[in-house]
Amino acid sequence: MFTRIRVAAIVVSISVVTALAQTKPRARDLGVPFDGTPGSNNAITDVKGVEVGHTTLISGEGKLEVGKGPVRTGVTAVLPRGKNSSDPVFGAWFTLNGNGEMTGTTWVEDSGFLDGPVMITNTQSVGVVRDAVIAWKVKHGSPDSEGYWWSLPVVAETWDGYLNDINGFHVKPEDAFHALDSAHSGPVEEGNVGGGTGMICNEFKGGIGTSSRVLEAKYGGYTVGVLVQCNYGQRDQLRIAGIPVGREIGGEKVWDDDVGSIIVVVATDAPLIPTQLKRVARKVSLGLGRDGSYSGDGSGDIFIAFSTANPGAADSKKLPQLTMLPNDSLNPIFLATVQATEEAVVNAMVAAETMTGINHHTVVALSHDRLREVLRKYNRLAK
Amino acid sequence: MFTRIRVAAIVVSISVVTALAQTKPRARDLGVPFDGTPGSNNAITDVKGVEVGHTTLISGEGKLEVGKGPVRTGVTAVLPRGKNSSDPVFGAWFTLNGNGEMTGTTWVEDSGFLDGPVMITNTQSVGVVRDAVIAWKVKHGSPDSEGYWWSLPVVAETWDGYLNDINGFHVKPEDAFHALDSAHSGPVEEGNVGGGTGMICNEFKGGIGTSSRVLEAKYGGYTVGVLVQCNYGQRDQLRIAGIPVGREIGGEKVWDDDVGSIIVVVATDAPLIPTQLKRVARKVSLGLGRDGSYSGDGSGDIFIAFSTANPGAADSKKLPQLTMLPNDSLNPIFLATVQATEEAVVNAMVAAETMTGINHHTVVALSHDRLREVLRKYNRLAK
Amino acid sequence: MFTRIRVAAIVVSISVVTALAQTKPRARDLGVPFDGTPGSNNAITDVKGVEVGHTTLISGEGKLEVGKGPVRTGVTAVLPRGKNSSDPVFGAWFTLNGNGEMTGTTWVEDSGFLDGPVMITNTQSVGVVRDAVIAWKVKHGSPDSEGYWWSLPVVAETWDGYLNDINGFHVKPEDAFHALDSAHSGPVEEGNVGGGTGMICNEFKGGIGTSSRVLEAKYGGYTVGVLVQCNYGQRDQLRIAGIPVGREIGGEKVWDDDVGSIIVVVATDAPLIPTQLKRVARKVSLGLGRDGSYSGDGSGDIFIAFSTANPGAADSKKLPQLTMLPNDSLNPIFLATVQATEEAVVNAMVAAETMTGINHHTVVALSHDRLREVLRKYNRLAK
Amino acid sequence: MFTRIRVAAIVVSISVVTALAQTKPRARDLGVPFDGTPGSNNAITDVKGVEVGHTTLISGEGKLEVGKGPVRTGVTAVLPRGKNSSDPVFGAWFTLNGNGEMTGTTWVEDSGFLDGPVMITNTQSVGVVRDAVIAWKVKHGSPDSEGYWWSLPVVAETWDGYLNDINGFHVKPEDAFHALDSAHSGPVEEGNVGGGTGMICNEFKGGIGTSSRVLEAKYGGYTVGVLVQCNYGQRDQLRIAGIPVGREIGGEKVWDDDVGSIIVVVATDAPLIPTQLKRVARKVSLGLGRDGSYSGDGSGDIFIAFSTANPGAADSKKLPQLTMLPNDSLNPIFLATVQATEEAVVNAMVAAETMTGINHHTVVALSHDRLREVLRKYNRLAK
Repeated sequence: MFTRIRVAAIVVSISVVTALAQTKPRARDLGVPFDGTPGSNNAITDVKGVEVGHTTLISGEGKLEVGKGPVRTGVTAVLPRGKNSSDPVFGAWFTLNGNGEMTGTTWVEDSGFLDGPVMITNTQSVGVVRDAVIAWKVKHGSPDSEGYWWSLPVVAETWDGYLNDINGFHVKPEDAFHALDSAHSGPVEEGNVGGGTGMICNEFKGGIGTSSRVLEAKYGGYTVGVLVQCNYGQRDQLRIAGIPVGREIGGEKVWDDDVGSIIVVVATDAPLIPTQLKRVARKVSLGLGRDGSYSGDGSGDIFIAFSTANPGAADSKKLPQLTMLPNDSLNPIFLATVQATEEAVVNAMVAAETMTGINHHTVVALSHDRLREVLRKYNRLAK
Repeated sequence: MFTRIRVAAIVVSISVVTALAQTKPRARDLGVPFDGTPGSNNAITDVKGVEVGHTTLISGEGKLEVGKGPVRTGVTAVLPRGKNSSDPVFGAWFTLNGNGEMTGTTWVEDSGFLDGPVMITNTQSVGVVRDAVIAWKVKHGSPDSEGYWWSLPVVAETWDGYLNDINGFHVKPEDAFHALDSAHSGPVEEGNVGGGTGMICNEFKGGIGTSSRVLEAKYGGYTVGVLVQCNYGQRDQLRIAGIPVGREIGGEKVWDDDVGSIIVVVATDAPLIPTQLKRVARKVSLGLGRDGSYSGDGSGDIFIAFSTANPGAADSKKLPQLTMLPNDSLNPIFLATVQATEEAVVNAMVAAETMTGINHHTVVALSHDRLREVLRKYNRLAK
Repeated sequence: MFTRIRVAAIVVSISVVTALAQTKPRARDLGVPFDGTPGSNNAITDVKGVEVGHTTLISGEGKLEVGKGPVRTGVTAVLPRGKNSSDPVFGAWFTLNGNGEMTGTTWVEDSGFLDGPVMITNTQSVGVVRDAVIAWKVKHGSPDSEGYWWSLPVVAETWDGYLNDINGFHVKPEDAFHALDSAHSGPVEEGNVGGGTGMICNEFKGGIGTSSRVLEAKYGGYTVGVLVQCNYGQRDQLRIAGIPVGREIGGEKVWDDDVGSIIVVVATDAPLIPTQLKRVARKVSLGLGRDGSYSGDGSGDIFIAFSTANPGAADSKKLPQLTMLPNDSLNPIFLATVQATEEAVVNAMVAAETMTGINHHTVVALSHDRLREVLRKYNRLAK
Repeated sequence: MFTRIRVAAIVVSISVVTALAQTKPRARDLGVPFDGTPGSNNAITDVKGVEVGHTTLISGEGKLEVGKGPVRTGVTAVLPRGKNSSDPVFGAWFTLNGNGEMTGTTWVEDSGFLDGPVMITNTQSVGVVRDAVIAWKVKHGSPDSEGYWWSLPVVAETWDGYLNDINGFHVKPEDAFHALDSAHSGPVEEGNVGGGTGMICNEFKGGIGTSSRVLEAKYGGYTVGVLVQCNYGQRDQLRIAGIPVGREIGGEKVWDDDVGSIIVVVATDAPLIPTQLKRVARKVSLGLGRDGSYSGDGSGDIFIAFSTANPGAADSKKLPQLTMLPNDSLNPIFLATVQATEEAVVNAMVAAETMTGINHHTVVALSHDRLREVLRKYNRLAK
C-alpha cells in the first residue's frame, strides 16, 4: 500500500530523530580523528542564528511505479538568520564540478547577498521548491519599498533516482513550507533526512551531515559551520582521516563511476565580505580532497558560503557601515572550512542507515565496526 | 469575469498572430536603419533547425486579486534543433547584470552543452516551467545509457508584476508543454506574446523581439539569430539607430529606475566551440549599449548562445569529430551578434501593443509615427 | 639621426602639453553632445587623490630598424591615491575580449584590492614596466609587517607595432619610474602621450583619453572618472553621439579587421566594495557599445575599476570599518561609467594628432571640421 | 665571494643533475604509496612532445646585499610541443587562491589556446622573463600572416625571498632563453632547480616536482603529466599518503602562516577542448587537498592545463577538424590529475635538499628516513 508521510507525521518523526541525535554516535564518537575544535553541537547551527529544517518523505516499497513510488526523498532548509528574519546575509558561491543546479546564484554573485534560505532537494524537484520559497516569502515577509515582491530563491539538488521515484515528482510546495517552518537551532538531524533521504555517498548510504569549528580567541573566536547533502563518490577513493577506508571495506559496487553530487553550505559569523566568502566557498574543495573525492563528470559539486555578521548590510535606506576581517586574517577561517567539510561528509555516512528503495535497490550504511577496524589497522583510531 | 485562455484557445490565437506577422510592420519596415543583412525571416529561426513556441496567458481585467488575476504572462520556448531532436548543442552563457535567473547554467558552463530548450517566463514561474521541462523530456525522450533520466533545464525570466498577477502563479506545467509542443520554424511572433506578454522595455510596452544576420559567403555564409525577452531600461536612455528617441518622445514615466531585465538567446550555425560561444554571449552587451542600456542594478541581463553545428558532439559512444571556426574568423559573427541584438530589441518595442493589466496599469506602445518623426528630424530615416 | 627623448626632455615636453591642454579643444568643445555633468577637468583626476603621469617616447623616423626605431611609444601611470600613498584601494576588473594583458589581476580578483598603480604601455613592454613597479615600490615604500616585499603590479598594454619599433623594446625601467614620479592631479594630457603615443582608434589616430561625471547631490554627489588607452576598432563601425561618423568620413583603411585593444580605468570616490566595482567594470562595455565597438577577436578589451573611498580598508592591524553604497543606489554610478567611457574614447581621438611612424606608416587624426560637419548633417551638433 | 653561475656553467650542472636523476630516490622509491600507474619517467614529459628546461642560479652566501646576493633562484620552462614547434595547444587555467601571478591567462581564457611555453620563476622576475619570451619568439618563430608579431606569454611565479636576494632582480633575459633552449624530453630534474631553486614547501625545502599517470587502454590509454613549483603550506598540515607526516616530524617552524604558493602545470595527450581543460585545472585542488593544503591567503595557487592533441587546431587558414573526448569519459583524466598532483608535490619535497640562503636562512629537506618511519608507524609504507 502506498502511503504518503508528510507534514504532520514528519513532525513526529523529526522529534524522534532529534532526541536520537543525542545518542546516535557521530564520526568522532567512533574514534575518527579530526583536527580543530568543534562548536557545542558540531553543526552548522553553532553559527548563531542559523536554523535547519527537514521534510523527509519515505513511503511505499517494491517495484517502481512512476508517480506512485516508492518515495525516498525530501527537502532541507538552511536559514542564515532563522525563519523570522528577512535580513539578507553576505554570500558567495563556487562550483567545483557543474553537473548540478543551484538556482539564484547569478544574483548572489552580482549582489554579494544571499537573500533567503538555502534549500536542498532532489534534482527533479528544484522547481517546485523554488516557486514555493517565493510563495512562502509572500506569506511571511513584506514587499520591497516600491510595493513589489522580488525573490530569486537559492535551491540546490542532488539526484536520488536510484532509491526514489524521482520522476514521480513527489515533493510538493507544502514540503518546502514544512522544512522552512520547522527549522530550528540546536542539534541537526543527519543521515537519511530531508533532501538527503535517498542519497548515496562513496557507494555507502549518504545524506545530510554537518560539522563546525570554533576559532581560537586570538583569531577572533569566530565559528564556521558546514552542512552537506552528500551523494558523490566511489568507494575505492574514499579516505577517512587519510586512510583508504573505502578500499579496505570493499563490498559490492553500486556504480562504476562517480555519478553523484555534493551540495555544501558554509556559514560563519566572521565579518567577511562577498569577495572573501567566495574564497571560503572555493576552499571546500580541499576538504573534499581530504576525503578522497576526484569530483567526477557526473557530479554537481556546488558550494555556497555566507556570513551572518554585518546585519543590515543590505539596508538601502542608509549607507551601511560594515566590519571586514582583514584578508591576512583569513587563514583560520579557510582551515576551519576545510576541516569542517572533511568531517561533515564522514558524519553524513556515519549517521545514514541502510535503505531499500525502488525496485528493491538497497544501499548499505558504512559499518561503524568496520570503520573502527580499518582505522585501528592503520593506527589512526583516536580512541 | 475571469477567464483563462490556454492551450486550445492559444493555438488559435497564435495562428492569427502568425498570419498577422506577415502584415505587422517591423522596425526596418518603419525606416529604422540597421547595418548588415538579415535572413529571410529576420528571426532566430533563420538558423536552420531552431524552433520557437509561445504560450500567451491573457485574462481578466481591473483590480488585482492575487491568484485570480488579471493575468498578463506566458512562456516562450526556443528549441535549438527543434522539438524532435534530443541532440544537445554547444552552448555558453554570460551575465551583464545578475538580478535575474537562468537555471541550468552551471552545467552549461562546465559541460559546454545546452541540452534541451531555453525557456523564458515570468520571475515567479521559473520553477514550475523548469520541472515541467523535465516531465516533458521524460515523456518525449529516452533515458541515458544507464537507464536514468538526467536533466538540468535552462529556464530564464523577467518580471511582469506591473501588469500581471505575478504572485498568483498562473503559469502551469501545461503552459510549458504547449510552448514546447507548438514550437515551429519560420516567422516568430513578437511583442505581447509568450514570456514577453506582460513586459515593459524602456518604459514602452516590451516583450519578445527577434532578428538575424546572414554573413557574406567569404565569411562562411553563416547565420546568426537573436531572440530577446525585453523588459529593461529607462525611456530617457533609449537610443534607436543612435538617436535619443526616448528623450524626444518623452511622456509619462513608468518608473524612476532601470528595474527590468532582458534575456537574450543567440543562435548560430557557425561551428563554434563553447569557449567561442561564451565570447559571442558577451558581445550581446555591445548591442544593448547601442540601444542606450546602462544595465541597472535591478536588471537581470542574462544571455545564452548556442551553435547548431557539430551534431552528435555530445555522443558519448564515440570520439566526436568537430569542426571549429578559427578564432580569427570570429569577427563577422561578433558583429552580427551586436547588430541582431540591437535590432531585436527595437523589433520587440515596435511589435508590442499598448496593454492594460492589474489595477488598470497601462503601458503604452512605442508610437510608430513618433518614431519615424524623430528619426526624420535627425536625418536617420531609411525610407 | 636616432635620438632618444626621455626623462629630462620629456619633463619639458609634458609641461608644454599640460599648458596646451587648456587650449586644445576637446570633444564637447567641438559640439559633440554628451549626457551628464563632468567634473572640473572632465578627467579621471576629478576623483580626488587620483594622479596620472606619462612618459612619451618619440624619436627617429623612416625605415624600421629593430632596436633602433623609429620609436613611438610610452608609459602611462594611474595612481589611485597619488604617488605618496601606499594605501590600497578596493578594485575589480573585467574582460570584454581577452586578446591582451593586464598583469596582477588574479590578486585583484581574489583580494578585492588594487595595491599600487595601474600602468599602461605597449604589448612588448609589459614585463619591464611590471618589474620596474616593484623596484619603484622597494625604493618608495616599506616592506610588510614581516619585513618582506610583496607586490603583484597591475600593468596593461595595447599594441603599437604599426607605428612603433615594438620589437626594439625601447621602454626601460626609468620610463616607468618617470611616469610614476611625474604623476599629478589636475588636467590630464590626452592623445599621443604616454602609453597611448603610438595607438590607433577606429582607424584614426588614437591614444589616451579621459572624462568624468559628477553625480547629483541626491545620488551622493560622487565622482566617476574614466581613462582609456584606446587602440581598437574599425572606422566603419565608429559612432559618435550615435551618428555613424566613421562611415561618413570614410577614407583609406588602416586594416581590414578589428585588431586593436582598449584598456579602460574607472575611478570613483563612491564607497563601493569589490563586488560592486566588478559590476562597474562590466558596464564599461555599454559605453564602448555606444561608440560602435564590436570588440573583435584581436582586441584586448580589459577594464579595471577602483574606489578611493574607505581608506585603510586593507589595514590588517585592526578590523576595518567600511562604508558601502547600497546596491540599489548603484544606477547613477553605472550610468556615469557608461557616459564617461563613451566620452573618453572620443576625447582620445579628438586630442590625437596625425602621426608618421615606422616605414613611413601614417595614421591621420580625426578631422575636427569633418566631425562637426557630420554631426551637423544629422542635427546632432550641440553648438 | 659573489660568483654568478649561468648559462655555460648551468649546462654542466644540469647534465649532472640529469644523470643523478636516475639514482636519486623519488617518493615511491622510498615506499610512499600512490594510486594509479605512472608513465616511464613518472614526469610531465611522459606526455609526448612536452619538454622541460631549467636555469638554476645559485651564487654567494651570507648576509643579504640587495643586488649582490646571495642568489637562490631560477627559471623553469615547460614547452607543450617542444622548443621547435610554434603550434599552440588547447589550454585553460584556474586559480584556487589568487595571491600570485600568471601572465597571459586572459587570452588563454578567451582564445582557448596556450600559445608558447609556460615559464615559472620568482615573483620579482615575472616581467623580465615575460618580455624575454617575446624576444625569444621573435628570434625563433615567424610573424603572423599580416607580418606582425603577437605574443602574450604565460609566466608564473612563486616567492623565494626567504632564501634569495629577490629584490636584486638577478634573473636576466638570457636565463629565460637558456631554460627554453635547454628544454628536453625524458627525465625531469626535481627539487632545487629552475624556478624552484629557492622554494619552500610545507616548511621543508621545496621546489620542482613532477609525476604522471597512464590510463588503462579501455579509457583511451592517455597520459596525464603534472609539474609543480611548490612553495606553499604549513608543516602542521602536511599529509603524505593521508598520514599527518608534517606533525609527526615536527621541528622548527619557518613561519607561522601559509605564505607560499604553488604553480601547477597539467599536460595531457587526451583530446580535450578548453572547457574540459578548465575542469581538469580545477581538479588540481583535490590533489592538493590530499596533501593537506588549505590554500592560505598568502598563497598564489594557480594551475594551467593543456592538451597536445589536435595539432593544427589554431590554424586559421582552414576550418580545423577536432577530436573531442566525450565529457562522460573524463573521469579517468580527472582522477589521474588528482593522483599525479598529489605525487608531484611529494616528489618535489623528496628531491629537494637542505639549502642555506640569504642571512644564513636555512631550510631543511624532508628527511627520507623520518618519512619512512612515520609511514611505517601508520602501516602505510609500501615497501
